[in-house]
Amino acid sequence: MYQHFLGVGNHLGTKHTYNTQTGLNSALPVRGSLVYCKSSALNHAATKPGVRVSQTVVRIPAEVELEEVIPHSRGGRVENHLGKTTPSSPDRDSNLDLPVLSSRAQHDKREKPPPVHPTTEIRTSISPYSAVEFSTTSALANYATEAGNNHTSRTPLVHGYQMVQAALTRSGAEYGADFGLIEITSDQSSGSLTQEEYPAKVYTLSFQGWVRAHRKMKDIAFVDVNDGSCSEGLQVIIPKSLQPQNLSFGSSVEVHGTLTINPNEQIEMVAKDIKVVGPCVVSEGYPFAARKVYPPDYVRQFPHLRPRTKQFGSLLRVRDAAFRAICELLHAQGFVNVHTPLLTSNDCEGAGEVFLVQPDSEGLKKEMAKDGKCPEEAYFDSKAFLTVSGQLHLEAVARGLSKVYTFGPTFRAENSRTRHHLSEFYMLELEMAFLENLSDLSTFIETFVKGVTSKVLEECEVDVQTLLQQQVSKEGEHFTLSELTQRPFVTVSYDEAVSILERHSEQLESRVCRGEDLSKVHELFLVKHCGGGPVFVVEWPRKIKPFYMKCVAGDTDKVAALDLLVPRVGELCGGSLREDNYTVLQQKLESSNLDESLAWYLELRKYGNIPTGGFGLGFERYLQYILGIQNIKDTIPFPRWPHNCKL
Amino acid sequence: MYQHFLGVGNHLGTKHTYNTQTGLNSALPVRGSLVYCKSSALNHAATKPGVRVSQTVVRIPAEVELEEVIPHSRGGRVENHLGKTTPSSPDRDSNLDLPVLSSRAQHDKREKPPPVHPTTEIRTSISPYSAVEFSTTSALANYATEAGNNHTSRTPLVHGYQMVQAALTRSGAEYGADFGLIEITSDQSSGSLTQEEYPAKVYTLSFQGWVRAHRKMKDIAFVDVNDGSCSEGLQVIIPKSLQPQNLSFGSSVEVHGTLTINPNEQIEMVAKDIKVVGPCVVSEGYPFAARKVYPPDYVRQFPHLRPRTKQFGSLLRVRDAAFRAICELLHAQGFVNVHTPLLTSNDCEGAGEVFLVQPDSEGLKKEMAKDGKCPEEAYFDSKAFLTVSGQLHLEAVARGLSKVYTFGPTFRAENSRTRHHLSEFYMLELEMAFLENLSDLSTFIETFVKGVTSKVLEECEVDVQTLLQQQVSKEGEHFTLSELTQRPFVTVSYDEAVSILERHSEQLESRVCRGEDLSKVHELFLVKHCGGGPVFVVEWPRKIKPFYMKCVAGDTDKVAALDLLVPRVGELCGGSLREDNYTVLQQKLESSNLDESLAWYLELRKYGNIPTGGFGLGFERYLQYILGIQNIKDTIPFPRWPHNCKL
Repeated sequence: MYQHFLGVGNHLGTKHTYNTQTGLNSALPVRGSLVYCKSSALNHAATKPGVRVSQTVVRIPAEVELEEVIPHSRGGRVENHLGKTTPSSPDRDSNLDLPVLSSRAQHDKREKPPPVHPTTEIRTSISPYSAVEFSTTSALANYATEAGNNHTSRTPLVHGYQMVQAALTRSGAEYGADFGLIEITSDQSSGSLTQEEYPAKVYTLSFQGWVRAHRKMKDIAFVDVNDGSCSEGLQVIIPKSLQPQNLSFGSSVEVHGTLTINPNEQIEMVAKDIKVVGPCVVSEGYPFAARKVYPPDYVRQFPHLRPRTKQFGSLLRVRDAAFRAICELLHAQGFVNVHTPLLTSNDCEGAGEVFLVQPDSEGLKKEMAKDGKCPEEAYFDSKAFLTVSGQLHLEAVARGLSKVYTFGPTFRAENSRTRHHLSEFYMLELEMAFLENLSDLSTFIETFVKGVTSKVLEECEVDVQTLLQQQVSKEGEHFTLSELTQRPFVTVSYDEAVSILERHSEQLESRVCRGEDLSKVHELFLVKHCGGGPVFVVEWPRKIKPFYMKCVAGDTDKVAALDLLVPRVGELCGGSLREDNYTVLQQKLESSNLDESLAWYLELRKYGNIPTGGFGLGFERYLQYILGIQNIKDTIPFPRWPHNCKL
Repeated sequence: MYQHFLGVGNHLGTKHTYNTQTGLNSALPVRGSLVYCKSSALNHAATKPGVRVSQTVVRIPAEVELEEVIPHSRGGRVENHLGKTTPSSPDRDSNLDLPVLSSRAQHDKREKPPPVHPTTEIRTSISPYSAVEFSTTSALANYATEAGNNHTSRTPLVHGYQMVQAALTRSGAEYGADFGLIEITSDQSSGSLTQEEYPAKVYTLSFQGWVRAHRKMKDIAFVDVNDGSCSEGLQVIIPKSLQPQNLSFGSSVEVHGTLTINPNEQIEMVAKDIKVVGPCVVSEGYPFAARKVYPPDYVRQFPHLRPRTKQFGSLLRVRDAAFRAICELLHAQGFVNVHTPLLTSNDCEGAGEVFLVQPDSEGLKKEMAKDGKCPEEAYFDSKAFLTVSGQLHLEAVARGLSKVYTFGPTFRAENSRTRHHLSEFYMLELEMAFLENLSDLSTFIETFVKGVTSKVLEECEVDVQTLLQQQVSKEGEHFTLSELTQRPFVTVSYDEAVSILERHSEQLESRVCRGEDLSKVHELFLVKHCGGGPVFVVEWPRKIKPFYMKCVAGDTDKVAALDLLVPRVGELCGGSLREDNYTVLQQKLESSNLDESLAWYLELRKYGNIPTGGFGLGFERYLQYILGIQNIKDTIPFPRWPHNCKL
């Protein structure tokens, strides 16, 4: 097992501190955090990411072959580290993944041709650089000479670094090998790595992925390979002799080669071998072409291929990170995850918009039918619905475990076709025992939402950037990520909110009616009016809220409920204190004709009763909010909405 | 902010090392691990837990009042630390949570009276101890004198410790307070705390929970309070003057008091104030009574109250821990969680046992109906079913992200009423790109299952013990937890498995037929025959497996599939390599009449194709396996099975 701790270089590029040790692996996490940015990095959201690679560990599997590089092959780069014109491979930031008008791929059988992204810069050629001859004998020193490169030599090491780290982690994790280590420490003052800090060794490894871009020169080709572990790929330089015939955009490849650092301080690979695993003939109907960003409406038509796009890959990773952040933060605060049932014989709020569930087989329904039951009741002895909320079930469990949450799919059989509605969506619902004040609930929600967002932005900076580049400009609205974690949440009462809306009725499409619910227009106006950040609206009219909400002390017309409204989305959370008085709840259930079906819910208050409260958070709306995503259908892998259940 | 690092005591009980510092909080996790046992502890599963409390940190919220105890109030205990007869509060290990035949609670309206647990010792009185007079003026020194106490003074500090730690963590986390710290270091040689090591300070705090047991003496009462954060509660000593009239088993309480250590080395609280939040009159129909363990069949009748029992509380926490362990381990290996849809227009395996989903509202169906569509198709333009597997969707995403998994509810509309079947259950499904060998898959599964189990047993030792005490004896089968993580998994081919079963046909209820599936009886026999541990059965007949499985190289009658069979449960996992040859898959789909509905699935192989493979693991069966739980209905909060969809 090799373990190398590479200290900060001595800025001559020729000498490095090595410390070969054993026995330290166990203290380090198997998955090192990718490029890790402390919260200060969140302030630079709209600008180019100033990535710091401090304390990050690259793990090399023990079986990886280690090779010394002959000193003179490094020399060419070391002399050029002051930011002047340096030998460099094409800058992928400038010529990849931008919409291109010309050379569109063929799209047989597809409904619409891909419209061009309206607000993004259009490029008509893949590179502004005049390429010169290549020699592959000394790949490190002799890449393309880049004309007119204005980039500084401090270009952050995002691309190759993330990809390599992921590839190394994967290969090690997959085969359970002991890892060796390279620790790359950063120049703390600049916040990024300089090339002199790199080891005078290069590493050879294999990895697999898909070709995102492919550019052929005379003697060499550049291929951008991505394996889905991060937004950016690894650039692979392939000598002509090794280039497979069927290598193209979209094909899956297995690459074996040597890792190097290019003069732009990006990790690259010089291929020793490359194999096409599965070719991709775009002209046979593949709906995507190299170097294009398609509008989400177009990409959404291909739900089975959508995960292959750079943007949707980023979305899926951010979604995963947000899911984990929610679970981790709640666990850290003592909450227990409870899988509330999807199938239920009662619906939470007495609303009619539920999906009915029964066996598809008529034979089975006949076989199982009992006297006096209709066919829909054959399987469960009662009608069964898809859940609209796990709250009532959570209230039962909170009376044993105190702090509980559920995170899972929820359903609405509504004919809503807005950009904020899905028929199947994910919801976090949470219930806390011994909760007596609505302000404790709103404080909890503010801390929690900001905490989750901070974690997501920290872990997924590059993915978030990828998504924001596309979405924010389209939305026509700009926001900085720091707003999400720093702007305080405002609280207004329902009565105040209505007064505000009444005072500004001339600016609103629809009038507000005191005593009734707020529309999306009202919600978004309130957010803008109250400073542009999230707004709690508290103490709602009892008549428009569900039966289980507790009345405000001293005002039986108002309930201790809150809605959290956020920019771009409107309602994100709804919460309340629950009616815990047995007699009051009994009366409410009787007047709603729910006393029989919810007898169990009433009984929760009979023995060892406690005050509880909680909230629900729409997960896809949350992703819309933090990522500026226009349409909720682009926040979930396989969206379902009226007249659509593709795949 | 107070931070006390209490060094190991000097064994005189009067002097302690204090080190008051600040600034160390941030380096410590918000939720300290509860009593943390390294893997060696797993070997002692069947015995009393030998808990080690090394390196554990108790966190005290900054607002907690700190009070010096007058020295002589501690003295009585210190002199008795050699394990002889010591003043002690009643030993709760001996008299709580055991079945009692007498003094059963009334059960109005309930179907069955609670049968007594058949194999557990029956006790007819709550205490074998003769209590003597109490003085509450010096609570630490003057508890009941325990006659005939055979326990050593090394009784592990599980009870109070866990509860207090949880209460402190909760109160701190809830109000976002800075924490002070007490670090309790252990006697490394004995592995448990001795009383001399405790601080000469005691702490006052408030917490809330439910009364698990209540024992009145002449001048004092002992109340066991639990808040659901752990299996064990905190014993509270209440002077007579403070005892509320309506304090009883099952009532919810808020307690304010002083933490102390009793001579059995358990943390206890001496109450300064206690308030009943919600009383519990057992005779009004509460189905549980103090100090009883009911058979699961009985408890299962009360799904809304079941989370209040000690055993089901433990189950819910273990379930949560297993869920988190799965997510954490997969994340650490680079897998991305993907929420595959619950509603789908195709079913994974062409099987007919699916649930059909449609709006409950006839009006909505009419409103949305299109020409040529039947009412079931009105909402989605196609029939929609509840998923039986997310695998096909995962295969789509694996072609972008490489390593993906889904963990969520899955449905079968089968009329199966066995102790291993549910209509709604949770499944982990996982898909790996570039997977070419079945043996790589089985190696992954073995490492993964053992890894998850190790994490769960480590985190939940006390909860696991609580569950095993009940289940294993009933099952009539004993196993040690170390088996779960140490016994190697065996691999046999399907052909070998059938040969084994043929050779032992006289021991089997049902004969095996070569070429057909194995029954539960066969599965469990194979497990026993192959050494009693998990067994992979690999290379199955193509005809009894789904269309998407890839043939074994050189044998088109066999597919590269595996089933993992485990003790007590039978099939736990099923996995395979997927057919990645476009033409072969096309033929298979055509012959199954799936070529139209699964055209998208075939198209995954058309562009940048890769070999993939994966597996599904039944989460409830996994819990049955590691916890020895007889009936799968006792592994999920709200079970659904034929003729049952309660709540």
